Amino acid sequence: MKRYTVNEIAKLESRNKTAFINSLSGFKSCNLIGTINQDKITNLSIVSSVFHLGATPPLLGFIIRPDVVRRDTLENIRENKVCTLNHVNEALVMRAHQTSARYEKTQSEFEECNITEEYLNDFQAPFVKESNIKMALTIINEIKIKENNTSLIIANIGDVYLQEDILNDDGFIDIEKANTITVSGLDSYHMTKSLGRLNYAKPNQSINWK
Amino acid sequence: MKRYTVNEIAKLESRNKTAFINSLSGFKSCNLIGTINQDKITNLSIVSSVFHLGATPPLLGFIIRPDVVRRDTLENIRENKVCTLNHVNEALVMRAHQTSARYEKTQSEFEECNITEEYLNDFQAPFVKESNIKMALTIINEIKIKENNTSLIIANIGDVYLQEDILNDDGFIDIEKANTITVSGLDSYHMTKSLGRLNYAKPNQSINWK
Repeated sequence: MKRYTVNEIAKLESRNKTAFINSLSGFKSCNLIGTINQDKITNLSIVSSVFHLGATPPLLGFIIRPDVVRRDTLENIRENKVCTLNHVNEALVMRAHQTSARYEKTQSEFEECNITEEYLNDFQAPFVKESNIKMALTIINEIKIKENNTSLIIANIGDVYLQEDILNDDGFIDIEKANTITVSGLDSYHMTKSLGRLNYAKPNQSINWK
Repeated sequence: MKRYTVNEIAKLESRNKTAFINSLSGFKSCNLIGTINQDKITNLSIVSSVFHLGATPPLLGFIIRPDVVRRDTLENIRENKVCTLNHVNEALVMRAHQTSARYEKTQSEFEECNITEEYLNDFQAPFVKESNIKMALTIINEIKIKENNTSLIIANIGDVYLQEDILNDDGFIDIEKANTITVSGLDSYHMTKSLGRLNYAKPNQSINWK
């Protein structure tokens, strides 16, 4: 196993360093965030920084970097405090990746990337019709991360939409069955292959697959 | 597609709600965090909340909930400001999951779960020998998330250890090749199957697999 010292990493060419560091956290979630502004122009951004924050209350967090990701998402979120979160699946991957291109403020990524906008039960922000797991989010806080000038957005989970047959009796949602994908690094996309679910672990008791 | 309203979700039985909400962010990273206290007792915790925060400076974030995860990790981190991050691979999954059992403060999960402790280049915290991608972290901030009484730990990435053949020329680390796994919900583990890497997206230009 080779050691890459902190100094060697710091000296990497900028794009190579970005790719290297982006791979280190492990596999990342792959979602599309849908927003709308006051002029009714919609915006859609692929994000890999969404993480589970807590179940009670039901909260998610995600990081937005003003300098990299399209500012429109952050501006829209600040403006009207709502967005949608839509899992990216295999059939959507190329169109979802395309939303990372720098479109004009007057262009909607839905239209430019051939993704279908849908509005559900009067929620203000647009959902992705092609997504198999999607939810309404209300932004409840924005925490500035001073270490690198990013923003942590904290969102409350509202209505959730999914196909009934991927929800197990114990509340577990089989996101692999919904073809949800995962991302590593900046641009590497992956399907998954389940190893199974493990029982609740207790000291001095061997665990087993469910 | 079925709608699960925010009120229906709130009424779910507590464990079912936890499983349901835990599945919604998408696939999660799967890591072991290694720490040590002043009495030289080591601690190892499986965590699914590690996320990429930025490449310049190289930063990771992770969430610790004092009420759920073993407090030892948080106490050790607060005490000596260092820990290790170790990717979980297929061969490690059962032993890694076992670290979530509630062991006594005097017990080390390394020993109890049959995972091998290793010390590299005088870094104070213990690494996981069986892990194929591991790194030294220095804690630089702890941000309290008031919405649910969790802590966001911000860590600086130090030395990184991996097998040379999984590092591509452009800085991308092939974590799938290292057998790194991903987790969904509370207890569902998954291998991955690469779809490929996509080119940098530009407006009005079709993207392709690399």
